[in-house]
Amino acid sequence: MVAQPDRVMIFDTTLRDGEQSPGCSMTRPEKLRVARALAELGVDVIEAGFPAASKGDFDSVSAVAREVHGPIICGLARCNAGDIELAAKAVAAAERRRVHVFLATSAIHRQYKLNMAQDEILRLAAEGVARARALCEDVEFSPEDASRTEIEFLAQVVEVAIAAGATTVNIPDTVGYTVPDEFAELFRYLRKNVRGIDNVRLSVHCHDDLGMAVANSLTAVVAGARQIECTINGIGERAGNCSLEEVVMALKTRAAFFNLATNINTQRLYPTSRLLSSITGMPIARNKAVVGENAFAHESGIHQHGMLKHHSTYEIMRPEDVGLQRSHLVLGKHSGRHAFRDRVQALGFELDEADLNRAFEEFKALADKKKELFDGDIEAIVLSAEGSAAGPWHLKSLAVEAGSAGPARATVQLEHSDGRSTEHSASGDGPVDAAFKAIEAASGIRVALRKFEVHSVSEGEDAQGEARIYVEYNQRTYRGASVSTNIVESATRAFLEVINRIEQAQAGARSREERIAATPA
Amino acid sequence: MVAQPDRVMIFDTTLRDGEQSPGCSMTRPEKLRVARALAELGVDVIEAGFPAASKGDFDSVSAVAREVHGPIICGLARCNAGDIELAAKAVAAAERRRVHVFLATSAIHRQYKLNMAQDEILRLAAEGVARARALCEDVEFSPEDASRTEIEFLAQVVEVAIAAGATTVNIPDTVGYTVPDEFAELFRYLRKNVRGIDNVRLSVHCHDDLGMAVANSLTAVVAGARQIECTINGIGERAGNCSLEEVVMALKTRAAFFNLATNINTQRLYPTSRLLSSITGMPIARNKAVVGENAFAHESGIHQHGMLKHHSTYEIMRPEDVGLQRSHLVLGKHSGRHAFRDRVQALGFELDEADLNRAFEEFKALADKKKELFDGDIEAIVLSAEGSAAGPWHLKSLAVEAGSAGPARATVQLEHSDGRSTEHSASGDGPVDAAFKAIEAASGIRVALRKFEVHSVSEGEDAQGEARIYVEYNQRTYRGASVSTNIVESATRAFLEVINRIEQAQAGARSREERIAATPA
Repeated sequence: MVAQPDRVMIFDTTLRDGEQSPGCSMTRPEKLRVARALAELGVDVIEAGFPAASKGDFDSVSAVAREVHGPIICGLARCNAGDIELAAKAVAAAERRRVHVFLATSAIHRQYKLNMAQDEILRLAAEGVARARALCEDVEFSPEDASRTEIEFLAQVVEVAIAAGATTVNIPDTVGYTVPDEFAELFRYLRKNVRGIDNVRLSVHCHDDLGMAVANSLTAVVAGARQIECTINGIGERAGNCSLEEVVMALKTRAAFFNLATNINTQRLYPTSRLLSSITGMPIARNKAVVGENAFAHESGIHQHGMLKHHSTYEIMRPEDVGLQRSHLVLGKHSGRHAFRDRVQALGFELDEADLNRAFEEFKALADKKKELFDGDIEAIVLSAEGSAAGPWHLKSLAVEAGSAGPARATVQLEHSDGRSTEHSASGDGPVDAAFKAIEAASGIRVALRKFEVHSVSEGEDAQGEARIYVEYNQRTYRGASVSTNIVESATRAFLEVINRIEQAQAGARSREERIAATPA
Repeated sequence: MVAQPDRVMIFDTTLRDGEQSPGCSMTRPEKLRVARALAELGVDVIEAGFPAASKGDFDSVSAVAREVHGPIICGLARCNAGDIELAAKAVAAAERRRVHVFLATSAIHRQYKLNMAQDEILRLAAEGVARARALCEDVEFSPEDASRTEIEFLAQVVEVAIAAGATTVNIPDTVGYTVPDEFAELFRYLRKNVRGIDNVRLSVHCHDDLGMAVANSLTAVVAGARQIECTINGIGERAGNCSLEEVVMALKTRAAFFNLATNINTQRLYPTSRLLSSITGMPIARNKAVVGENAFAHESGIHQHGMLKHHSTYEIMRPEDVGLQRSHLVLGKHSGRHAFRDRVQALGFELDEADLNRAFEEFKALADKKKELFDGDIEAIVLSAEGSAAGPWHLKSLAVEAGSAGPARATVQLEHSDGRSTEHSASGDGPVDAAFKAIEAASGIRVALRKFEVHSVSEGEDAQGEARIYVEYNQRTYRGASVSTNIVESATRAFLEVINRIEQAQAGARSREERIAATPA
């Protein structure tokens, strides 16, 4: 007889550790959209941000705490009074809330980063956890860089944190350094040597620098951890965090081995993965496990032959189980409002009535131009209907001329929300370059282009192209994205979005606190 | 005192299992280029292909065997006389050669794919290995889907293969199903229960369907395997194979834990990864461990602060150790031929004198237009100088006109190698669409566009854009790529390359054997 499977909590840190990936920062509406999708996915905890990092982060965490229901909403804090109070305040409105306090413990972090002795670390940990506990019933403590910490000292810190009231103790492999055998041994040691450890939930937090985040997380649950910290698509600092979809599908596919269950609705994995990729502009590797384009593709003759005879010859998961639709063809010009809304929801979006109406109008306009509308088209419509490109400048018209001999020429007409109207022409190396130069001349903002990408978001001759642009301006990175069947136009609109984001940032600069820090683990 | 580290052989299967990734198929010159880069990287074995799959595969393996020196050159074969003889013949010219015979052993493969009983499998394995051994001193045997095979039967098959003369026994986790603890146990069982196993080299071959290919490979070496099968960038069927760069850097970074060494020159990891990505058009995920764009990026304030104090606070590998140059700025208009050749070699290319001259001319022309030339620019020049776009059609001129109101218009002038010259105009939804339609009209070939991408290959306002196009034509996928500072031009040239590839394929169709099968594991 097999015992009833034990529950493992899934702690999602896409909005905190994930957002620290270069190029993955999100606006507040974007974070809310991701948080709602995470709630629908069935995660147990959403780490919504690091409230002390900036006013923007504080506001985002507060908004998630107020508006997203179901999961525990968690805010991160360094181990000091200011951070802890801000974190507790930010999550106060949540039905269920958690404060997550971290403090580095490894010799290398003590020496180079904190310049503190072991005694001070122990004292700080006790104080910080106690202070958090006074403000919040549910307190998680993380000894940063735990996997490189002297094991006896780590046990002491954990014991002190538990005595001070921590309800969850998380063991982070902050730099992605450990290997399964060693990490399992660390968990067994703590469980054997730390007083009170059986009264708290043990958690694991892994990074993928050596490609072992998923295996290290699973070895920790075998050794007694009952919470896994992870992110959608495995985004996060450097090589990223443990990938939620991989670790969840490993527990599910190998249920007989692990005998552990999660609360995840696995059919929401693929839509949630796509949603995050659309929002951040971070593409998913084609050969990414579970959610990559090739994860369920069978190329070689022998594999195809086997698959035709029985899918289990080369497939250990069914694509339906992760929410992948074999066919991406969804809608056409005869599709109604109801079908459109259903598809939008299936893709993980929640639109209010006004946004849905706007999106449906765009859908009908596109359906007149394009025979078949794919999921990628729907996503692009919804993301643009949500007004990511809203800003002072508006593109009134664009005209380009180009030949293989000589420079190209572009003319743009722009309108500014302050009433100005302007027309500029410029020549450049190709029509896109010329259009960018004309916009720079019109707006008076000169940027350094860092990256420019166009992807078709759907299939066929009339596929839409999504342009993504990353620029540097005043030592900050800005991005813009736009979709059109005309790629010169989508590139131009994406560039204008960049200019709009820069103007908005300049307008808001004085009222915004400086981002003072960002986080651990 | 620490024992002298044991050697683990690195068996690279980028050209065999890797090439089975959808969209990753390579031409013979491309495979030769990758094979030379692998030899320089220091891999011990190159699995160059599956000679029985097609005449093209046979020819590629033969070419690698003839022209690439250093590593053992290996050819794959199903467990039948025809395959084995072809494989032995294909690798015959190599200084050191191996024949790799595989046969599925799991119940599910026996029942659904092979329709064979255990007895037949045992007999076939013995016969196949003996036949291979009669033709080649070095024979590897793989029981396909080993990790899902009944363990006692697996031990029997392995014992039979060893008795028949196998010198390496490889244990594949063909469907990416196993987990470290279980897989280690499997290796320990085999070492304990199989007669003669101490006289052969044990090998491991993992897939990443549950995100554990690297951890499973490492657990196997801890349990006694001394060869790891892997691919550059982890390409391969579905979610791909164990990633060479991750498994090698894990062994190196955690040398004190593993006490195992490889022959890999780790400073060649990054250039080799980039080379493969350029050739296949398969992008590397930004958060890919070791070789991803973000692998050594530190975004958050706390991490940046720590890094400034001491790099080891958040970095367990140094970027220099994997061959990543912190600065990508390399050359300008005053750079000479010598500097150019050095940089080309550092990027992993080997050009003959004629190609180098052609590339240098292109370099000088581009340096006149662009202030700073980055590695991406150099790669693009070399890849185009190698003539990937050579074909019957040549673009003589291109002119486009487009505005935000109404359709765009493109005019192309094409020349065909048979002497025809033609000019066509077409209108479309944007200048790129119009140019594609004009080329279709001129060439008389109509294709279904599957994917269209543009990436900037370097930085700055004058960055070059690489366009990649995937189309379907007569149920086959064709790709084209081209680079220019003008993205409309690069898209048009990429599309023309597609048309050229289709014409070449049609011309060669009668002389080419059909691809009859492709491979396991």
